Amino acid sequence: MSDQSLKERLYTIIFEADTPAGKLFDVLLFVAIMASVVLTMLSSVSEIRAAHGVWLFPLNALFTGLFTVEYALRLYCTRKPLRYARSFFGVVDLLAILPFYIGIFIPGTRFLDVVKVLRMLRIFRVLKMAQYVGEADLLKNALVSSRRKIGIFLVVVMTIVVIIGSLMYVIEGEANGFSSIPQSVYWAIVTLTTVGYGDVSPHTPLGQTLAACIMIIGYSIIAVPSGIITAELGLSAAQHKNGRKCGACGHAEHDIDAKFCKSCGEKL
Amino acid sequence: MSDQSLKERLYTIIFEADTPAGKLFDVLLFVAIMASVVLTMLSSVSEIRAAHGVWLFPLNALFTGLFTVEYALRLYCTRKPLRYARSFFGVVDLLAILPFYIGIFIPGTRFLDVVKVLRMLRIFRVLKMAQYVGEADLLKNALVSSRRKIGIFLVVVMTIVVIIGSLMYVIEGEANGFSSIPQSVYWAIVTLTTVGYGDVSPHTPLGQTLAACIMIIGYSIIAVPSGIITAELGLSAAQHKNGRKCGACGHAEHDIDAKFCKSCGEKL
Amino acid sequence: MSDQSLKERLYTIIFEADTPAGKLFDVLLFVAIMASVVLTMLSSVSEIRAAHGVWLFPLNALFTGLFTVEYALRLYCTRKPLRYARSFFGVVDLLAILPFYIGIFIPGTRFLDVVKVLRMLRIFRVLKMAQYVGEADLLKNALVSSRRKIGIFLVVVMTIVVIIGSLMYVIEGEANGFSSIPQSVYWAIVTLTTVGYGDVSPHTPLGQTLAACIMIIGYSIIAVPSGIITAELGLSAAQHKNGRKCGACGHAEHDIDAKFCKSCGEKL
Amino acid sequence: MSDQSLKERLYTIIFEADTPAGKLFDVLLFVAIMASVVLTMLSSVSEIRAAHGVWLFPLNALFTGLFTVEYALRLYCTRKPLRYARSFFGVVDLLAILPFYIGIFIPGTRFLDVVKVLRMLRIFRVLKMAQYVGEADLLKNALVSSRRKIGIFLVVVMTIVVIIGSLMYVIEGEANGFSSIPQSVYWAIVTLTTVGYGDVSPHTPLGQTLAACIMIIGYSIIAVPSGIITAELGLSAAQHKNGRKCGACGHAEHDIDAKFCKSCGEKL
Repeated sequence: MSDQSLKERLYTIIFEADTPAGKLFDVLLFVAIMASVVLTMLSSVSEIRAAHGVWLFPLNALFTGLFTVEYALRLYCTRKPLRYARSFFGVVDLLAILPFYIGIFIPGTRFLDVVKVLRMLRIFRVLKMAQYVGEADLLKNALVSSRRKIGIFLVVVMTIVVIIGSLMYVIEGEANGFSSIPQSVYWAIVTLTTVGYGDVSPHTPLGQTLAACIMIIGYSIIAVPSGIITAELGLSAAQHKNGRKCGACGHAEHDIDAKFCKSCGEKL
Repeated sequence: MSDQSLKERLYTIIFEADTPAGKLFDVLLFVAIMASVVLTMLSSVSEIRAAHGVWLFPLNALFTGLFTVEYALRLYCTRKPLRYARSFFGVVDLLAILPFYIGIFIPGTRFLDVVKVLRMLRIFRVLKMAQYVGEADLLKNALVSSRRKIGIFLVVVMTIVVIIGSLMYVIEGEANGFSSIPQSVYWAIVTLTTVGYGDVSPHTPLGQTLAACIMIIGYSIIAVPSGIITAELGLSAAQHKNGRKCGACGHAEHDIDAKFCKSCGEKL
Repeated sequence: MSDQSLKERLYTIIFEADTPAGKLFDVLLFVAIMASVVLTMLSSVSEIRAAHGVWLFPLNALFTGLFTVEYALRLYCTRKPLRYARSFFGVVDLLAILPFYIGIFIPGTRFLDVVKVLRMLRIFRVLKMAQYVGEADLLKNALVSSRRKIGIFLVVVMTIVVIIGSLMYVIEGEANGFSSIPQSVYWAIVTLTTVGYGDVSPHTPLGQTLAACIMIIGYSIIAVPSGIITAELGLSAAQHKNGRKCGACGHAEHDIDAKFCKSCGEKL
Repeated sequence: MSDQSLKERLYTIIFEADTPAGKLFDVLLFVAIMASVVLTMLSSVSEIRAAHGVWLFPLNALFTGLFTVEYALRLYCTRKPLRYARSFFGVVDLLAILPFYIGIFIPGTRFLDVVKVLRMLRIFRVLKMAQYVGEADLLKNALVSSRRKIGIFLVVVMTIVVIIGSLMYVIEGEANGFSSIPQSVYWAIVTLTTVGYGDVSPHTPLGQTLAACIMIIGYSIIAVPSGIITAELGLSAAQHKNGRKCGACGHAEHDIDAKFCKSCGEKL
């Protein structure tokens, strides 16, 4: 087999998912990613380290070895290796193997565990190549086109929690756990989002009344992002269906009942 | 009465709900299921076992006896008993009576209580045969057609909780209850879903800031499944509506109750 | 003024809200109801009873006196007093005054406080007569037409909490606070609805994993009632807009773009 | 440069955002507002006051100085200074600088911190002048037109929490933390909104059953505001779309970006 055709076959298997071999590769990759993430998570449990510590390093080495081979193959079979290495997934692929090799030289650095966990992001590489693309795009587009509305919503939420948090700091005071404005704003976020840890909670009647207000506000305005996303998803779905293209100008977003192109006036 | 006609009458009563007898059977079955589930639940309360323990066994035996008779009759009156026995509801029907008989020989096994509770699933047998079918189908279809979008959503959620959980493990550490990555991921799920037990909560300023971020994320992205289901339900309802086409003018969007084409007045 | 015309004028003021006097009556009634509910609530605070106890009884007597006069006038000016007395609001009006008179003879019964609070329901009497009727009807209709879907949803939710609650009872056991199946089902409801008190929380890894599952389920399926109500509200609003009536058969629910009656085929 | 043209140039920079200078001013203002709010928040943390206390006053003075200059310029360059001073943003602009000057004469008043934080509201001044106007208006209109439905919803919620709160007061009693009706209503709000602090939680079986009911209610009716806002947002978007009518055929439902009638092809 020539070097060129080997490269192409590898590319089809590793980067695409249309062939049986490509699909199998995706499934195996999915399993390997999940297994190595679970392994990293379990490695942090002291009971498991104590009981099965002897297995952890070889298993870790095995997965890292596999991912290293995969990374090398990806670099080998793409036409522009540098562009791949700089892309989002290229960086994630590198971050999936680097912490292991660093960990050999500088042991005990806990922060490397987090970097290891970032390989979880590689899951989206598998999703990216499957029948999920259309659906994921629909969701992404809905989020992207509603980014300004959601931005305004978050600014309103931030303003509410900062002002109510400051008020609670004055009303409740340090004696009841509201020891500073940032601490009170944290409490306001915990309450408005209806998380409600209960580590800090108001004790004065006025504080409880204000807390009740922020709860009702939080409970009601959760409807706003819901409404934004729903309206956007409905719109996206509608535009999705109307995929007819105008022969004259190429404009593609026409309503179902349109007889003429809304952009150039040509008959559709 | 011939054996065949008896079988058919029994089938009509037990498996269908169109006759008065069939409806009565469904209502009685509903009451018996609910009563036996409540009985099983109360049996696990030690105060009730101490005070009314003498009643529990006979009542349990009574319900199990009834369900056993029902199971035998179902086996008797279906044309393909084996197919029934292997079906989902056939297995559930068997699981509703088996634990009692096993419990006589092997007493004290707590796990049998859970199996007993599984008879709660028999409720859907009653729903299946009533006017709820259409509505349940609409809901099921909406969920089925949005399964991929919800799958992507769950993958995103899992990625967020794994990464933020690992970060919190490094930031807060064992001193503040974040003793391992799985424990921290559990905390992240508790927080992102806005449950917020408060058994573990961040104490460092950086940890609280990150916690506030995950709360806001959780509070905002709950809109995504809402939007997906709503758009899907709206579409289902619309498809429900737009089935029939007018023979004369070809207009297709007619209401379910329409007798004449709303566009040309022709009889549908 | 004749007795008849007095009755009619009183009826217009008390039961209707089209005249200035009727509107004023509604506003005053609203204020009196809210004030008396707040008074009842404050009466239960021991600090307020200790400090201002001397004011509570006369104020209570004043409001009850006003409501008694109102009840007598309502009985007097309706054409069918018995029918009014038996109606929902008639009973609520009576329950608003009865506890005070019973409390004079049988003092110290705490339960009367709850009955007193039921007068809060009289608020809806005021709403009933104002510009809120249409909006309230829209909401009510949306809820009524989605009652079966919501019923199915609640049955599914109940089944999930009963089964997961029983599982947690076996997994976590009494040592971790899951002392009985009802207690565990209560915990499952607290968790699924994302309330999360934290008075009972899982401690075993398996229990925490199952808890994480029920949280994700609860977080996702909250989308279902949202979708149901939204679709129903959209439908209601759409039907609301299309109020054109067919001249021939009187059928009223036509789409905006309908040219012919969908029920009899006559031109609209 | 004449005094008049200076005024006009200043007005364009400060009040508008169409010129590069105006955009730069908005960005700088945004940064200054956020920085001064963060400064005020950090000033309340005792650790920071202890470690960096010497920097806080000069920084505070700097920001207040900037905002004072800005306020003076705004007063100078508007045509009707009094109208500006009385407007909402005029008052907010004044409140952003006043607490500092008052604080010099009357030190130690904690309440001034809250007033200082109100300058957070100035963020909306920046949003007001940017590409966010249309989106913000859409959200505002949806909220304004659904105000009555949300009002009815809140009245229903208040009635539920008052009645269930009173019931819990009688059922659970002071021994379990339900010490008064207001306290119990506070608990009911904490539970219905799914916040769930857990500082007060029911301990009797009857109380836990009622609590489970209020949780299920709270979990289900959150769908109502979602549905209201979504329906309203959909309607707003639809109205946004269907504004222009075709002069030739009268067709009215055109997209915002349409240049030609989609029904007859005529130029709009």
